[in-house]
Amino acid sequence: MPVLKPYRPDSRHLSALSAIVGEGHVGTSDPVRMTYARDCHTIGILRTCEGQFPFPPDFVVWPADEGQVIRLVRYAGENRIPIIPFGAGSGVCRGVDPILGGLVIDLKRMNRILDLDAESLLVRVQAGMIGETFERELNHRGFTAGHFPSSIYCSTVGGWVATRAAGQLSTKYGKIEDIVCALSVVLPSGNVLRTDRVARMPHGPDLDQVFTGSEGTLGVITDATLRIRPAPESRQFLAFNFPDVAAGTEAIRRVLRHNVLPAAVRLYDELDTMLVGRSGKGGGGMLDFLPVPDVMKFLRSVIPGAVKSSRRTVMTRANLLNRVAPYMRDGCLLILTFEGETNLTALEVSVAQSVCEGAGGRMLGPDPARHWWENRYHVSFKQSKVMDAGAFVDTIEVATTWDRLMKLYAAVREGVSRHAFIMAHFSHAYPEGCSIYFTFVTAAKDAQAAGVLHHRVWAAAMEACDQVGATISHHHGVGLSKAEWMAQELGQAFPIHRAIKEILDPRNVMNPGKLGFA
Amino acid sequence: MPVLKPYRPDSRHLSALSAIVGEGHVGTSDPVRMTYARDCHTIGILRTCEGQFPFPPDFVVWPADEGQVIRLVRYAGENRIPIIPFGAGSGVCRGVDPILGGLVIDLKRMNRILDLDAESLLVRVQAGMIGETFERELNHRGFTAGHFPSSIYCSTVGGWVATRAAGQLSTKYGKIEDIVCALSVVLPSGNVLRTDRVARMPHGPDLDQVFTGSEGTLGVITDATLRIRPAPESRQFLAFNFPDVAAGTEAIRRVLRHNVLPAAVRLYDELDTMLVGRSGKGGGGMLDFLPVPDVMKFLRSVIPGAVKSSRRTVMTRANLLNRVAPYMRDGCLLILTFEGETNLTALEVSVAQSVCEGAGGRMLGPDPARHWWENRYHVSFKQSKVMDAGAFVDTIEVATTWDRLMKLYAAVREGVSRHAFIMAHFSHAYPEGCSIYFTFVTAAKDAQAAGVLHHRVWAAAMEACDQVGATISHHHGVGLSKAEWMAQELGQAFPIHRAIKEILDPRNVMNPGKLGFA
Repeated sequence: MPVLKPYRPDSRHLSALSAIVGEGHVGTSDPVRMTYARDCHTIGILRTCEGQFPFPPDFVVWPADEGQVIRLVRYAGENRIPIIPFGAGSGVCRGVDPILGGLVIDLKRMNRILDLDAESLLVRVQAGMIGETFERELNHRGFTAGHFPSSIYCSTVGGWVATRAAGQLSTKYGKIEDIVCALSVVLPSGNVLRTDRVARMPHGPDLDQVFTGSEGTLGVITDATLRIRPAPESRQFLAFNFPDVAAGTEAIRRVLRHNVLPAAVRLYDELDTMLVGRSGKGGGGMLDFLPVPDVMKFLRSVIPGAVKSSRRTVMTRANLLNRVAPYMRDGCLLILTFEGETNLTALEVSVAQSVCEGAGGRMLGPDPARHWWENRYHVSFKQSKVMDAGAFVDTIEVATTWDRLMKLYAAVREGVSRHAFIMAHFSHAYPEGCSIYFTFVTAAKDAQAAGVLHHRVWAAAMEACDQVGATISHHHGVGLSKAEWMAQELGQAFPIHRAIKEILDPRNVMNPGKLGFA
Repeated sequence: MPVLKPYRPDSRHLSALSAIVGEGHVGTSDPVRMTYARDCHTIGILRTCEGQFPFPPDFVVWPADEGQVIRLVRYAGENRIPIIPFGAGSGVCRGVDPILGGLVIDLKRMNRILDLDAESLLVRVQAGMIGETFERELNHRGFTAGHFPSSIYCSTVGGWVATRAAGQLSTKYGKIEDIVCALSVVLPSGNVLRTDRVARMPHGPDLDQVFTGSEGTLGVITDATLRIRPAPESRQFLAFNFPDVAAGTEAIRRVLRHNVLPAAVRLYDELDTMLVGRSGKGGGGMLDFLPVPDVMKFLRSVIPGAVKSSRRTVMTRANLLNRVAPYMRDGCLLILTFEGETNLTALEVSVAQSVCEGAGGRMLGPDPARHWWENRYHVSFKQSKVMDAGAFVDTIEVATTWDRLMKLYAAVREGVSRHAFIMAHFSHAYPEGCSIYFTFVTAAKDAQAAGVLHHRVWAAAMEACDQVGATISHHHGVGLSKAEWMAQELGQAFPIHRAIKEILDPRNVMNPGKLGFA
């Protein structure tokens, strides 16, 4: 039975916080503090399995409204208590780890749609609303926000904005920063910044784009106004097989040049495609919807001793498999979905089909794409099973422009291959470039050893990004886990980020350590 | 013959500047200083006509490259000399008026395309390249930037970015902030911020969106990386007549909901439409392409004594005409253009036609739209003729969401009608809202009286924006002319803007007074 270090909450703070949110809405018990001690970062989960909770918060509060958030932020600021804004904790970059303890402000009680302007296609929603509930509510009224992260059941609107999240249909609908139209933010001063919902921002700086992706370091986002669209009247599916990732990515690039924007675009590399094939279900990618036992069986079959074995063995075998991958004969699976008005969608499908076939794709019909669609949210509930099986898994999502994409793919694979079994799919494609979503699997004897190995994998991947010229993230955010690479990533922009942080949060109480802020 | 006050340039500064850019690239003569004493703001032009140059710079320099810009910025900063970055001076908000004298840095020698990445559809271009030259060069290579301000012949890429400009086809291609992918900025410190061209910004703050629209107050933009697209393979034109602006704007809103994005969208109100009709040419709007003599003839016919008369007479008659306008029977002209791939464009045209006819529009065929297309750049060369005729004219471009659009139209008309003859068109439409481009004409006995009247008109319009909830600008920027309304416009965002200004430009040398910065 894991236990936290003996702890007595400061009674003065406890009374003050209770006075703000009500006694029933302050948590200081061990189970509460364990629950809010981490997000879904791989190493954090492994530590939890071993009963380790290195960073519990001192207090968790559940405010009812923005007025309470203001009072909480003021109180914590005056008392130099670190503040960690919290959505649903499904992040994977240690974005909410209370590394200095402090006050977690969980916004999930602030979970209402405040206003839906059907004429201007804008919805104002509180930060704590769970994504799936929000989208379902919009659907009931005939709309969609177009934002479908695989975490939609366990992430909040505020979390989306705070992390610059992307949904699975971002090629059509954009990332959250393209969807955000206005924000309310409780600043560290306790003042509220409420940007106006406007047709377009007429003057710089655009503060919506300062606070979007700020990961709780600049203030507490309390509500967001998002662009919505009429719910699509039809949806179509297409899938192709390409000889390799170069041919597949080239096809995607050409489709987008035609100003045809599929909703989902997912190209699986040879390894990922083979796993999809072995699952007998088509269309997913290892962690997307394959039954985990199959994955583990596969890992055992190709890497004897891959699981429940020494790290050395795993790495040797993984490396072998990584080298074989490009010679596999299954080719690469591309799935596309289209949605919107029936006539337009039909035309988009016909353009995409003709472009893909012209680029060497073999048409597979709609089934693999439809299957993916039906299982698209399963990934967020698989990780624990992989861990139960004795391995650990993590994902690295990076992005660059088309001209550097194949170099990035090769460099990250090369860097990570020495340490782990790695595969990838290409998704979140834009006219100027694309994200690559790497999945790596490896094993270590315990959480501590896993932490060391995990860091080695990440360092290799981040180094590859720097060499090629790619961003170290695309939509998972930075948190604590990528903080050490931010100075290199940002260059001359980094001191400007720091200066903005300092002027907004001079006491440095907002989510310490995240985004590279010391 | 206008003369400036006697002036002797500081010889130490002159030598230092000459050492940086070369002797032939520093200007201190009266003609040079007059030329750079203002932009195309209405009152500035009137003052010029009267030989007044209240704000001449001390020095104008034409640097050859970014290295020289760095040295200039460092020298000026160390010597507390105000710095005014300068593109082509076609702004209309006093964005480059050297109100404290100082150093104008004209970037027009930095006018090359540095890199065109045809694969990622990105072009890196120096700030001083003239828009039309830039677009023509792209066209030669088979691409378009999709950015077509009416000033395209007399504005630069750097000016577009610095002012958050919009082109006439912004409904399809976006405003410049949607097109910008990366920037190089010489900061007031003399360091260079070079943001990376990325597929998407993965973490906040997004500094591209801080410097876009910064109007030279935060640094000197030296180059920009912009998104481009393959040049459209076909272009189609459509025009409709609607009974009133409410019906016309409703049609536009519905078209955009179908995810059909016309390139140009322009709906003229009753007055503007009538002027278009009288010109016998169809499709333009008073200042867009009508021969100015016709406009003045018209003004004389409906407002006897409108020009070359006392201000009082003009205002009385103008007000009468303003009141009659809604009862005019010509209705409102809507023109739409579509461009892109032939099949997609054809489908978009058919959707738009069906929606417009369903919303009460009477189809006029393609001619009025084609005529507008062929004359779309004429507006920037008309103003002087209006002034020659004894009146003066200015435009007010504001924007809001669809739910408030008709209120905004009524409120600005109401506020301005007391002072001037006013008409408008609706353009730059987006799924969430639309800009209104008001044109007002009035007369005053001299530049000083015109200045007083002009301010009264603007104050009425800005007040209307505040009442309704609209932005005080859409794409002309803020400059000095709207600076006094920025605090009201921005609310809690204003102190954050100021703080960002202070940390980047602690000596306050960058383009003093613009964007509301004291």
